[in-house]
Amino acid sequence: MTAINRVERIMEGFDPKIHGLDEDFVLTKLTKMKGCGCKVPRDVLLQLLQTFKTDLVINNDEVDIGLDSCVIPLRHPGLRLVQTTDFFYPLVDDPYIMGRVTCANVLSDLYAMGVSECDNMLMLLGVAVDLNESQRDIIVRLFIQGFKDAADEAETKIRGGQTVRCPWLLLGGVATSVAHETEIIKVDRAVPGDVLVLTKPIGGQVAVNSYEWLKNKNGKIEELNLDESKIRKAFKQVCEQMSRLNRNAAKLLHKYEAHASTDVTGFGLLGHAENLARVQKENVEFVIDKLPIIEYMDEIADRMIENGGEGFRLFEGRSAETSGGLLVALSERSAKAYIDELSSLDHAPAWIIGRVVEKSDDSVARIVGDAIRQSIISPL
Amino acid sequence: MTAINRVERIMEGFDPKIHGLDEDFVLTKLTKMKGCGCKVPRDVLLQLLQTFKTDLVINNDEVDIGLDSCVIPLRHPGLRLVQTTDFFYPLVDDPYIMGRVTCANVLSDLYAMGVSECDNMLMLLGVAVDLNESQRDIIVRLFIQGFKDAADEAETKIRGGQTVRCPWLLLGGVATSVAHETEIIKVDRAVPGDVLVLTKPIGGQVAVNSYEWLKNKNGKIEELNLDESKIRKAFKQVCEQMSRLNRNAAKLLHKYEAHASTDVTGFGLLGHAENLARVQKENVEFVIDKLPIIEYMDEIADRMIENGGEGFRLFEGRSAETSGGLLVALSERSAKAYIDELSSLDHAPAWIIGRVVEKSDDSVARIVGDAIRQSIISPL
Repeated sequence: MTAINRVERIMEGFDPKIHGLDEDFVLTKLTKMKGCGCKVPRDVLLQLLQTFKTDLVINNDEVDIGLDSCVIPLRHPGLRLVQTTDFFYPLVDDPYIMGRVTCANVLSDLYAMGVSECDNMLMLLGVAVDLNESQRDIIVRLFIQGFKDAADEAETKIRGGQTVRCPWLLLGGVATSVAHETEIIKVDRAVPGDVLVLTKPIGGQVAVNSYEWLKNKNGKIEELNLDESKIRKAFKQVCEQMSRLNRNAAKLLHKYEAHASTDVTGFGLLGHAENLARVQKENVEFVIDKLPIIEYMDEIADRMIENGGEGFRLFEGRSAETSGGLLVALSERSAKAYIDELSSLDHAPAWIIGRVVEKSDDSVARIVGDAIRQSIISPL
Repeated sequence: MTAINRVERIMEGFDPKIHGLDEDFVLTKLTKMKGCGCKVPRDVLLQLLQTFKTDLVINNDEVDIGLDSCVIPLRHPGLRLVQTTDFFYPLVDDPYIMGRVTCANVLSDLYAMGVSECDNMLMLLGVAVDLNESQRDIIVRLFIQGFKDAADEAETKIRGGQTVRCPWLLLGGVATSVAHETEIIKVDRAVPGDVLVLTKPIGGQVAVNSYEWLKNKNGKIEELNLDESKIRKAFKQVCEQMSRLNRNAAKLLHKYEAHASTDVTGFGLLGHAENLARVQKENVEFVIDKLPIIEYMDEIADRMIENGGEGFRLFEGRSAETSGGLLVALSERSAKAYIDELSSLDHAPAWIIGRVVEKSDDSVARIVGDAIRQSIISPL
């Protein structure tokens, strides 16, 4: 089977009927939570994980729970096991694109550590119990095809996994690399003077949810007086960026000697900035002064806030992303070259969104009050 | 925190009140499927996995989907990545024991390949959405403690994972070893004349389900005229064997030069015998002539069949096991020594249950019509 073109597929949109499903079949109705928004809140999680007595720091080149991937010195000299897992629920209706996004999202945790070669992937699948057999077969086949095409693009293979029945459609994977220590970026070396680069705009949760409002005709669109065509456009934009591998961004971390990096997912831009800032060896704070946002998503958040809502806490950097970009700290000079080269490889922009400063109080990361909001149009 | 004694814990039984839960709190009510019984049926799975175009055979020392763990030659000479994942639903009410069982069940897939050193574990957790916060914290803490104690016993560490909200409580893990090729048993070398050894009795699904009938007071106990105390005893027996690591069984595969091995889980004794027999290099059939069954579970299955039921297809070898024993093919002489040494290490018996013969027709594995049923009393 030849790989399906990801971008063409997104632009076409998903017609359930073409694939043998009912006209009104909606994948995302098979779950009540979406993508990385399904994560158990960070504070709850940390409390529950106390059993492991983990410091959430880097010791002797070993990274435990708390960063993107765990990194484990092996019994074999110079080698490290780098490993990550993620699973979540459908947030787009095309099972093929959902497979792509799931695979890209799992791989992203390796890429965040600069590890660009994945040695193996496992696929995790919970098949929704209220699907009939025909629906199940169609959806699972499309999902697997998408997952596999993304794995092929990443030059890795899927060689195991588990499939169970579950009330919700559950999608995930495990990515593993046995890497030489030199293949792994040390992510704890940010210094004052570094700048922060982000490789995909934020606003994914707003894009996915506003598209849901459209589909569900729940009155939200009218209530907030939103532009339907702009929402549809933003949805395609987020599908493209969620299914885009962060692999080039990872490879360039080495070339431009990045000092720290992570990927932006369920805890939002600021949540992941905090996680990364906390493990730095130097006494630093990450200060974000620019927010690149998927076009029109800032307007939606603004209107929600005007109506007394929280606007997904987008401007606070707490809005969940799924398969978001890398957040990288590197020298200012390297940053410009990093962005230029990445943009030409991925045909999509990246931005300097802040800087690393000396830590002056308890804050490890913050978004300044007058942060510039930049509306990012789709590269499609 | 010191490790909890697994056997004492099982013998005590689980009192929800002691742990701050309501008296009538029943963990297994958080899901409609149990343990490895939740697997998507094998034929459906194989059909769906066709996208991967996998042969389910062993090529160039690489094991893909189809056996217990995948085995992948690495970029580093002599080294293999051995990896497995599993997740399922609670089938016992003590979250601590459930953590033990989950960890033992995942590790078992490494042990089935003779790999006794696990380099890393990831923990997968879906937290049931209809738990309140207090219930959630109690259950998750107990579960993690059990998972960790089992990992400690296995001399490995948990260094990552994912936690999501899910309608059902979902429990699982990933076990990974970067092993030298000599640490891995070649599992495709069974020859006619070998005998088959099983290291834990079957009947787990019967034990877990009949115990559910007791708890749910659904009339099944009366209908089948069953002995409550025998069911309670069998339940403790199955808890003990599900939470018992197959690690000693794995180590001894090397010492006694096993020719083939797998672990018995969701597809039942015969299902896994078939999977293993299919990948053998020689033209062999696995013939099972003895069925060691947890005490009283054969009687329950018999009564169900008398009443027109299927008796979980126990005597056909199709009844699901969770964290079941290893099924091993080795020379007759080695088998006796293997059993003796394993029994003394694990304080639990093992049995020769059949033999490897030359294949004469399409059958790769079968249970003979007059197979001897052996009732296995608890080693507790």
